Amino acid sequence: MKTKKIFLPESEMPRQWYNIMADMPTPMEPPLHPGTGQPCGPDDLAPIFPMNLIEQEVSQERWIDIPEEVLEKYAIWRPSPLYRAYNLEKFLDTPAKIYFKNEGVSPAGSHKPNTAIAQAYYNKVAGTKRIVTETGAGQWGSALSMCCAFFGLECKVFMVKISFNQKPYRRLMMETWGAQCVASPSSETNAGRTILERDPESPGSLGIAISEAVEEAVNTDGAKYSLGSVLNHVMMHQTVIGLEAQKQMDIAGDYPDVVIGCAGGGSNFAGICLPYVRDRIHGKDVEIIGVEPSSCPTMTKGPFAYDFGDTVQMTPLLPMHTLGHNFVPAPIHAGGLRYHGMAPIVSQLIVDELIQPESISQMETFEAGVTFARTEGYISAPECNHAVAMAIREAKKAKEEGKEKVILFNWSGHGLVDMAAYQAYFEGRLKDHPLPEEEIKRALEDIAPLPKPQQYKASGFD
Amino acid sequence: MKTKKIFLPESEMPRQWYNIMADMPTPMEPPLHPGTGQPCGPDDLAPIFPMNLIEQEVSQERWIDIPEEVLEKYAIWRPSPLYRAYNLEKFLDTPAKIYFKNEGVSPAGSHKPNTAIAQAYYNKVAGTKRIVTETGAGQWGSALSMCCAFFGLECKVFMVKISFNQKPYRRLMMETWGAQCVASPSSETNAGRTILERDPESPGSLGIAISEAVEEAVNTDGAKYSLGSVLNHVMMHQTVIGLEAQKQMDIAGDYPDVVIGCAGGGSNFAGICLPYVRDRIHGKDVEIIGVEPSSCPTMTKGPFAYDFGDTVQMTPLLPMHTLGHNFVPAPIHAGGLRYHGMAPIVSQLIVDELIQPESISQMETFEAGVTFARTEGYISAPECNHAVAMAIREAKKAKEEGKEKVILFNWSGHGLVDMAAYQAYFEGRLKDHPLPEEEIKRALEDIAPLPKPQQYKASGFD
Repeated sequence: MKTKKIFLPESEMPRQWYNIMADMPTPMEPPLHPGTGQPCGPDDLAPIFPMNLIEQEVSQERWIDIPEEVLEKYAIWRPSPLYRAYNLEKFLDTPAKIYFKNEGVSPAGSHKPNTAIAQAYYNKVAGTKRIVTETGAGQWGSALSMCCAFFGLECKVFMVKISFNQKPYRRLMMETWGAQCVASPSSETNAGRTILERDPESPGSLGIAISEAVEEAVNTDGAKYSLGSVLNHVMMHQTVIGLEAQKQMDIAGDYPDVVIGCAGGGSNFAGICLPYVRDRIHGKDVEIIGVEPSSCPTMTKGPFAYDFGDTVQMTPLLPMHTLGHNFVPAPIHAGGLRYHGMAPIVSQLIVDELIQPESISQMETFEAGVTFARTEGYISAPECNHAVAMAIREAKKAKEEGKEKVILFNWSGHGLVDMAAYQAYFEGRLKDHPLPEEEIKRALEDIAPLPKPQQYKASGFD
Repeated sequence: MKTKKIFLPESEMPRQWYNIMADMPTPMEPPLHPGTGQPCGPDDLAPIFPMNLIEQEVSQERWIDIPEEVLEKYAIWRPSPLYRAYNLEKFLDTPAKIYFKNEGVSPAGSHKPNTAIAQAYYNKVAGTKRIVTETGAGQWGSALSMCCAFFGLECKVFMVKISFNQKPYRRLMMETWGAQCVASPSSETNAGRTILERDPESPGSLGIAISEAVEEAVNTDGAKYSLGSVLNHVMMHQTVIGLEAQKQMDIAGDYPDVVIGCAGGGSNFAGICLPYVRDRIHGKDVEIIGVEPSSCPTMTKGPFAYDFGDTVQMTPLLPMHTLGHNFVPAPIHAGGLRYHGMAPIVSQLIVDELIQPESISQMETFEAGVTFARTEGYISAPECNHAVAMAIREAKKAKEEGKEKVILFNWSGHGLVDMAAYQAYFEGRLKDHPLPEEEIKRALEDIAPLPKPQQYKASGFD
């Protein structure tokens, strides 16, 4: 019988995270202070994050040891299995070999705990009593809630209101793990109250929720803020995915021709691909594709520019592919892929042409998800369906070209708490929402006055 | 670092199911024809099940080969990991070692696909085009839907109406896998119409849904019926759980003092325990506990008697612990544990004192589930919380007695699609529903006129 899953024993779990900043051909540009426009120092970030994570954020060390306490919690589901999608291959009648890394086996159902555990641990060590964060679709909020429970920390989550109302199960997961979850915009922060005064019916957005969480963290004794994507240290924590995948692909006796991940803030994509980007920097022939929704085309249509991470302009300015901090995408079902920006590391690697961004429309992703469920069994989260759809595209291309191609993608999480999106698909209520160029231009006007990074390219403005 | 999970390579997956009928100290009593009251022959069952499964139902062979095609699908998530619950042990400050088998890693989130794959395969081989079944909480219906998709079979699921309305995500999972799911009682069958005439607002029950599914299967060309629990061949298919656990416990270097499973129809419990019952028959000192809700106390309060599997009295009479085919438990959140009967194999083993039944009340099970989630991460299905609660009881007892005890329980599935039950718990809407003795007596009057098995004991009548 052919081996379906490749497991690593716990003793083979990576002992270090990979920090790509040590290897990037173009050095990263610094975050800028939101008030002064000058590069941020550690002291500027200290009210928001504990110093040990700030050190990781700026570290140039290639390998950073994973603490024993973090490894112990990782062992609840890591190393995650690498799958060979034989049934999907057969269905597609493709000569391609399709592998996927199953990050859905974590108790929260996604890759998010990879960094949540690390962040909860470092906060605990630094004396934090309470972590405040935001969540959109709910994957991040639930992951952090669980990991705060593991380390005895309080956790408060501002959840984008429309999601809060549509996804009661997500909120209940957070409460089961002991966290407090409130709908954002809320009346608990200045940021929230300001938005509610303007629009009492505001459905909320990730940008608003970030503003609320940062404000509360900064103003509460013993509290810190935590972000589940975008930042350098988050990308680094996620590299356990790719480091494991490399060992598992070695066992399988294959090396990927193409590595695929869906990308919202960029963390699961960075997790699978950064160790392969390193290979590519060292001359390996591997294509690396990040996939986003065509109705929120941050990487494919947004310029590389300095922009705020949040709507109320409280966060530092980050150099990233962005559609502007006021951008609100169409109401597509794409979970965490609806963010206006993209991780600076991923953005810089796109500028340096080490990563190739692609976009896919909503209908194709759900079609792919249903095909995947009926062949491989697992029901993907809507964001994850973007990676599945791109893998299927690559497998079909391989068939057309008659080439045996090795495809690896990150299956970032299951969709069992997101079935309402499938319902909309089955009931014919979903459609594609390609973004008109005028809307992109309008969205980008917000960032036009901001400083420009050195590597700035005005793609998307043209 | 201590090993958290014990994996088996796919090459170590059991190649045979264990059929305890070859080893039972008291031979099983036969099913009786619902019309004549005479023992059923294979021909009586042929309109309902394919002959290859009927053969398994009555087989006395100790080991039955698992077909290659079934093993291939099992490999999607099997062998499932065996966990050591270090974090729970630490929280309870117990000298006990707590192990659990994680059956929640299947794409459907429970142990149910262990038999669904086998049943879909054998039906496919026998020429069945369409499988009809029922589901209560939805675990079984979703598992069978997935497995029918794997083998290209049509699938129709009658889902108990109250569940159908409360759990839209379960229905959507079935539809994602390509099945048709209708609320029961429906107007599509005589059984359903009869019930609806009497009570148009009927919330449905498992007994009614079984009647509908059997009726449609019998009356449709190329269709067969499938049951997700209770029957001998279902118990046998689930033994992969216990057979794997035995190998994994060997690797861990421990042998369980006590083996625990929650029991509704009995299949996940049989799955983990039957290989250990065999050890016990051969003189091993191992305690085996099946746990049920105290408001549906089939094993602990129901007599061992002949009873129908369904409400409309279409199924053969089975010798089992039962509360009577018209019994409707209180509206507790216990998923699949609300069935009036218990698998004949499990029932006979209780009569023979090889298995010890226990009951636990609702509040204790949810308290246990929350403790488990906050220590071990995973959120259990409500039925599964019964096993967790019993494991915690045993661990506390070990602490009181100062004994190092080895506890093994089956974690039959996650609760991510059952979060409404947790909501009710957090909102203080749950309470215990101990069943008054008068109600038990009333429920049992339905079965009093039926034939009695040889081993009949009138427990519950006193």
